Formats: sequence, C-alpha cells, structure tokens
Amino acid sequence: MTNKLYDTSLSLLTDLYQVTMAYGYWKTKTSEKEAVFNLYFRKNPFGGGFTIACGLANVLGYIENFGFSKKDLRYLSTLTGNDGKPMFEPEFMDYLADLKLTCDVEAIPEGTVVFPNEPLIRVRGPILQCQLLETPLLNLVNFESLIATKAARLRLVVENDTLLEFGLRRAQGIDGGMTASRAAYIGGCDATSNVLAGKLYDIPVGGTHAHSWVMSFADEQQAFDAYAEVLPNNVTLLVDTYDSLQGVRHAIETGRKLVQRGYKLAAIRLDSGDLAYLSIEARKLLDAAGFEDTGIVASNDLDETIISSLRQQGAKINIWGVGTKLVTAYDQPALGGVYKLAALRQEQSAEAVKTTEQVDAPRTNGWEYKMKLSEQAIKISTPGIQQVRRFRDEQGFVADMIYDTESLEGSASQATTMIDPLDFTKRRRFEADRPYEDLLVPVVKSGKRVYESPDIHTVRKRVQIQLANLHPGVKRFVNPHTYPVGLEKGLHELKTKLILKLREG
Amino acid sequence: MTNKLYDTSLSLLTDLYQVTMAYGYWKTKTSEKEAVFNLYFRKNPFGGGFTIACGLANVLGYIENFGFSKKDLRYLSTLTGNDGKPMFEPEFMDYLADLKLTCDVEAIPEGTVVFPNEPLIRVRGPILQCQLLETPLLNLVNFESLIATKAARLRLVVENDTLLEFGLRRAQGIDGGMTASRAAYIGGCDATSNVLAGKLYDIPVGGTHAHSWVMSFADEQQAFDAYAEVLPNNVTLLVDTYDSLQGVRHAIETGRKLVQRGYKLAAIRLDSGDLAYLSIEARKLLDAAGFEDTGIVASNDLDETIISSLRQQGAKINIWGVGTKLVTAYDQPALGGVYKLAALRQEQSAEAVKTTEQVDAPRTNGWEYKMKLSEQAIKISTPGIQQVRRFRDEQGFVADMIYDTESLEGSASQATTMIDPLDFTKRRRFEADRPYEDLLVPVVKSGKRVYESPDIHTVRKRVQIQLANLHPGVKRFVNPHTYPVGLEKGLHELKTKLILKLREG
Repeated sequence: MTNKLYDTSLSLLTDLYQVTMAYGYWKTKTSEKEAVFNLYFRKNPFGGGFTIACGLANVLGYIENFGFSKKDLRYLSTLTGNDGKPMFEPEFMDYLADLKLTCDVEAIPEGTVVFPNEPLIRVRGPILQCQLLETPLLNLVNFESLIATKAARLRLVVENDTLLEFGLRRAQGIDGGMTASRAAYIGGCDATSNVLAGKLYDIPVGGTHAHSWVMSFADEQQAFDAYAEVLPNNVTLLVDTYDSLQGVRHAIETGRKLVQRGYKLAAIRLDSGDLAYLSIEARKLLDAAGFEDTGIVASNDLDETIISSLRQQGAKINIWGVGTKLVTAYDQPALGGVYKLAALRQEQSAEAVKTTEQVDAPRTNGWEYKMKLSEQAIKISTPGIQQVRRFRDEQGFVADMIYDTESLEGSASQATTMIDPLDFTKRRRFEADRPYEDLLVPVVKSGKRVYESPDIHTVRKRVQIQLANLHPGVKRFVNPHTYPVGLEKGLHELKTKLILKLREG
Repeated sequence: MTNKLYDTSLSLLTDLYQVTMAYGYWKTKTSEKEAVFNLYFRKNPFGGGFTIACGLANVLGYIENFGFSKKDLRYLSTLTGNDGKPMFEPEFMDYLADLKLTCDVEAIPEGTVVFPNEPLIRVRGPILQCQLLETPLLNLVNFESLIATKAARLRLVVENDTLLEFGLRRAQGIDGGMTASRAAYIGGCDATSNVLAGKLYDIPVGGTHAHSWVMSFADEQQAFDAYAEVLPNNVTLLVDTYDSLQGVRHAIETGRKLVQRGYKLAAIRLDSGDLAYLSIEARKLLDAAGFEDTGIVASNDLDETIISSLRQQGAKINIWGVGTKLVTAYDQPALGGVYKLAALRQEQSAEAVKTTEQVDAPRTNGWEYKMKLSEQAIKISTPGIQQVRRFRDEQGFVADMIYDTESLEGSASQATTMIDPLDFTKRRRFEADRPYEDLLVPVVKSGKRVYESPDIHTVRKRVQIQLANLHPGVKRFVNPHTYPVGLEKGLHELKTKLILKLREG
C-alpha cells in the first residue's frame, strides 16, 4: 500500500458519492451554480470546553495539488452501475481532466481556539468543486483538530513540565502517526519520538533506549554504562526492565561515571509499576546521590486524567511521555466535523455575480439560503455565508458571534445582538466600540492560495496565547463552562424563518 | 504534509530510540549479534474472543523499500545532544547509507484468526536491523489488525446483509482512511465509499448522493428525479433531508419513472431518526408500491451493538453503512501490540552460526533466551524462537500451542502437552496424530521477500473460512469463551526457570 499510495494523485481521496453528485451537476448543467459550504463540528471533543483548529496547512497543500490524473480517470471510467454498464459518460472524464479549482476558501488559522457551530473553513464556488472537496477537507481537519486539542489538554495538565509524544507504534497507520505528531506538537507537546515527523515538520525529536537494549547485555549496569559511553550527551536511562529502584541505583552508578567525564545524567525513565510511588522513591535516591538535576520521565498509557491524578499524589515526575492515548485520541477517536451547504446562487457564475451584485436584493445578493432539517436541534445546520466575530476585553475572549457576511456587511459600526443557537431566549448585546476580531481569513482565491501558513513553531505558540485568553472555567475538564457562541440576530431570524418554511413545506 | 510525506523515504518512520540504540550497537560492535524479536498483542480488542491478523502486505512493502536516503542521513547528522554537539559520528551515517536488511522474517498470513501472546511476526537477524523495524512493523500491524477485527465483528452481526464502509471523512488522516478501507474490506465489508482505496486496492466502491444534492434543488422530488435521470443504474436515494417517510414517497415516485425506463430503484437510505421505526414503515410503503426488491440502507454512527439491537427490533434494513465507528475502531482505537526481544546469540553473525550449529548445546544452538520481567504476569514476555501450532478436529480449531522451534525441532512426531501461560495448572495433551498446522510461514529470507501476498479478495475469503472454524462461543460478543492458547511444556519450563533466575538476580 505504502508505495502505491505515495506515488499517486490524491484527487480520488473522496467518497464516491461526491463523484456521482459531480456527474449529476455536470449532466444537469448546474455544476457552475455558486455554492457556499461551511465546515464545522457540533461538540467539543473529550467532554471539554474548547477545540484547537488544526489541519489548514494540509488542506491548502491538498487544494494546491488538486487535479485528476489520467490513471484516476481511467479508473473512474471502469465503474459500472447495477446493469453492468458504465456509470459515467466519457465526456465527463474529459471535463474532469480539465477541471481546475476556482473556488474561494476562507478559514480560521491553525492554532486558534474554536467552538461548536463555528465554520472552521468556508468554501465558496461552483457547487461541483465544493462537493469534491468535502471528504478530504473533513478528513484533514477532523483528525488534526482532534489531536491538537488532546495535546492542548495534556499541556494544561502538565503545566511547565516537559511533554513528549511517542505514539507512532500505536497510531492509526503511517500518516495517522505522522499527522498526529504534527498536531500534537502544535497542541503543546515539546518533542516527538517520530524521526520522520522530526525531519519533515521540523519538530524536536527525543528518545534514548528501550528494554531490549538492557536485555541485550549481561546485566543492567553494563547496559547503562555502555549506553552512556556511546551517547554521553543524550542519557535517559530506562530503569524498569527488571526492578525499577534497583535500576535507579544502576543509573546513579552510570551517572557518576558520566559526571567524571564532564557529562550529565539527563533523566531516568519509569515505564511500569506504581509511577507515583516509584517516582518519589527514585527522586529520593537521585537527590541523595547529588543528582538533583536529573529528570524523571514517566510513560505507560498516560492521559490527562492519569497525569492529573499522579500530580495530585505528589509524583516526582517532570517529563511526561504520552503515546497511544494522545495519537489516537483514545477516549474519543474522531471529531464529528461536518460540511454543509449553506447558500446557493442560481444560474450565476462567480464572475457574473461580481458585476451584477448591485442589482440583486441588497441583503442577500441573489443568494438562496440553505439548511438541513433534523428532529434534533443540534443537527440543524445554519444557513448563510458565515463569519465568526470574536469579542474580547482586557481579560481575554468574551464571546463569539456567527454572522452572515451578506446581511451584516456595512453595519459593523452598529451595536449587535447575538442569540444562543439552542435557546433563543439567551441573548447578549455588544456595543459598536467593543474590540473584536473576525476569525475567518481568505486563504484561497479563485483556486489560488493567497495565504502562507505560519511555521509550525509559530502555530504552536499561537495555541498557548489563545488558551491564555480563555477563562479558566472554559478550560476545566469536569463540567467546563460553555463559552458563549451565538448567532447574530439577523442570522438567527433568517434561520428561524427558513426552518418554519421547511417544516411547513 | 501530504506531498512531503509521499515523496519521502520511510526508513525514518521510527522512534528516535531505535536509531540511538542502533548507534549504540554499532559503536559497541554488537550490531551483528543475532537476535529474535516477536511481535504479539496481549488482549483481543473490543472485549472479543478473537483477532484477525492483517497488515503483512504493507510490512513486506516496507521491508522491500527499506534504506536510508541521503536526506535522511543529513537530517540524522543534524541531531544534537544536551551539550549541543552531534549525537552521531559521521561514520555511523556511512554505515547506515550502506545498510541493507539481511534478516529473516516469519509471519502469520493476513486474514488468519489469531489470539493473545501468539507471535504474528518473528524477526530474526542482526539486532541493529531488528530494532529499526520495531516501530514501523507495530504501526502497520496494530492498526490493520484492529480494523480487520472490527469489520469481522460487524460481518458476524449483519450475517448475509450488505456491509459498506464509509468512514474516510472521520478517519485518522489520509492513510488512516486508506488503510482502514483495506483492512475493513479484508475483515468482511462488501465495499467502500473511498474511491482512492477502490482504485489502489481493487475494492468495490459504492455511493450515490448526499443531503446537499437534495438541498441544491427546489424540492426533494426534483432532486430525486434529476439524480435518477442522470445515473439510472445507480439509484439509492437519501430520503431524510426533510422528512424521511415523505422522502420514501418521493423515492417511490422516482422509482416508478425508473421502472418505466427499464431501470430499478436500487435502494433508499435512512441517515437519521429512529432507524427501526423508519425502516419498518419505509418497507411497508415500498412493498405496497411494488418495490419489494428495493433495499433499505441505514447509516448514522452505527456499530455492531447498535446494528445488533436494530436487528432484534425487527428493523427492515438490509444494507448497513458503517463509518466512524469502524475506521477509527471507536470503542478501542488501538491494538496494544508489542515487539519483544526473545533470544540472542552472542558474538556470532548469522552466517557463522549456520556452520557452527552442531557444536553448540543441542537444544538451544547457542541461543540465550531473553525476556522482560514485570509485576503483572500478562506483561512478562515469552522467550524463544516461537512458532504457533494450531490443532484442529472435524469441527474446526481446537487449540493453539506456542513452542520454541529450537527445542521442539525433531520431536514433532511425539505427543505434546501445552500449558496455559497464566495458569500453569491448566494443561492439555495432544497425541502425535492430531492434525495441526504451523501458522508462521517464511516471508523474508536474508532480507529478500520470499512470499507473495495473496490478492485482497483471497485474504477476505480467508477471514470467513477461518471464522467458520471457530467455535460460536469464541465469536460471542458478551463474555466470549477464551480460545485455548498455551505454551508447549518445554517452553513453559524454560520460561519459568528464566523468571526465577531473573527474580533472584
């Protein structure tokens, strides 16, 4: 698989129904209808109060490289329906062969704190193109945002301790590991064990030795000495192959020799047993021997709950190695992001619209707003060409208001009211002079990238700055306070009207 | 990331500690010590009674393409220790540049039913090489075996119904989706929505349209008619955009027109609401209109528990679409496979050993058996060069015995006794004439592949044949019967002796 996958174009990395719908639009000559889709999720993961947006860099890479190869089209033309005849006409393959993306994309930058119902990405353009992007965009954003959020939670728990990610062996596939390493670093990890992620994404890498190193020597002391001899500037000794505290004593012995040579015993590592007890005892042994600066690494199926508990128990651990539970987001391995049609402009190409805007109805510019109904209020999508306005004060973020750019345009100088999407009696008014920021920024215009992703270290710093602006109650793990996100009054009314109309019709 | 990843060599897809240990072996001139590592897991996933081995095809692809590129080595040479000086000597880079794998690999073929403690893969060769393979092999085998097992469980529940995988949008990264589609098909799915997986892995693909297709038309009837007009040989209509049963009526209307044109309404799809109730009512409407052959697809966060419940409620669903819960193995997103050193032959290269075998102790051929201790019995590894012997009778598989090839060699004609690894009082004796099969087969010899992976359809069939040989109690989801897996008596005694020796020392 590996090599096959890596040699191939990724434009077929989508659900078949996107291609059949594309064919449908093409055949019914509606492929150029201008559409707006919003990518958003409905619930913060892990029962938490926030989510970290991540994945945009890869989304932009995907869009830049979009295009069907001859092999892709040959494959599509072999697909048959239930009568054994081809699904698609050959002319459609010619159409796809020439297809260049022309859509506009706006997105919330990576590393931003985001909340349910906020569009992380908004795609606007010919409906056929928007549709083809649905699956890959969801795949990329769902996973990276999930892992970045998990890492951010871990960072909140470990505070200023060192946080290492070493999940590759249990990750969901090669790319599951690679992408997780990237998002985990962005979310707040200090380093990864994944060497390829280090190389490709400029993430610091770390790691020393495994049990097998110790087992390959006649005894533990020899194994530690040999390791320190060979790699004196990178000595973290794994002490639990046979007996952890005995292992600490052996490590101290090796440490003494290191010090004589002018090096230091960086840390010892505990990978099993009672980590609270063992770390406290190990700390005593190390301190008594004068190794106050030697760190204690702990690993073994750690997550934010276990780390929090260990810290409460007074565990003397200052370097945390987290693997499986982080890279697979073990307690919730998927973010349920969706991508919903929110507006449609009939029979007009994007170009045509730009010149005729003035003659359309002033507040909707010819847009027909769209939504999907559901018996569950949370599953009803919000129509409109959405933007997120984040209000702030001296303490940090106050509330986010989702608004329709077509109806609010030009009224930014007026006071606004936002309404809770799940309880319309909850309202909040913002005066015109309240500071705010609009979160979505243009990243692709007419199919061309217009946004350079910041380097990974900048994105990582952004996460911490963003979290610092969030009220502690929102960052709490148990029953977190719900950060206020509302619909701008006009959008709320528009949505309500549309629901009533659809329920009647 | 995507494109960077896909252009690169994957030999750095490993944990840094594998490279630092490799350096340690090289520097201490022990890199050619012959080692044996076993890859196994300790618990069946999902609380179930069995696991499906999967991932070998990708492991072989990885091994075939192993080799450090110049870029890889340039990156490694930039790594520094805590004194800011390089971790590795330049000569080590030259060594890695020339490194060719020379190990032997034996493995259990994909699609085989396997159980805890059984080596799925056994790597034998220079310890440095064995070590470098640890992380990628675990990554590949853990994930694919997990998903294949999940799919096999779903297949058991849906019996002869159709089972579709459409998880790409929620998968853990691109490759998380691709690899999941492959393993899900092997485990028992009939098709995937993932077009690229269809193209690259020869998996049947399926899918028709989403809510957005319906929303892009003035009303549902128009949307259905337009779809059927365009793709008459692939008509499954999603009926829940506005009101599901009204949607069924619209689908029937479209179906009538299809029949007039000589086509058929393949199915309707329900994606929300009370699937039991709605499917029963939809079935009535379809049957009353003469659409007895039209299928009913259901989707919406399904897993084996929900499907089982829906079937018990008499839901009239005969096509099941499973996404997130399958491709992420939602209730247990990682299989905890490990890779443990089990034997080591000191100071001898693989070549040297082959000629001196006769002069060594007859039962161990110079091997020193290795294991890792732990306070938890389940975490103590088993030493030896292991093979798995599966005994069978007319009804199917009876028990698996893990034995050491060095000590059992030549005694296959005698009766054998196996002992439960967690309770040594549980024993089982097998006469010499009991039919059996040894599960691990040679797949790589001296670094060269000697095994052709069967095509994916053959592997998929193998899963079903294997499951048919398993007692129903083992396949039960609630408190499954534990399939007997034991250690051959000699291996058990050897392990016990080694534990006692290590605990004393």
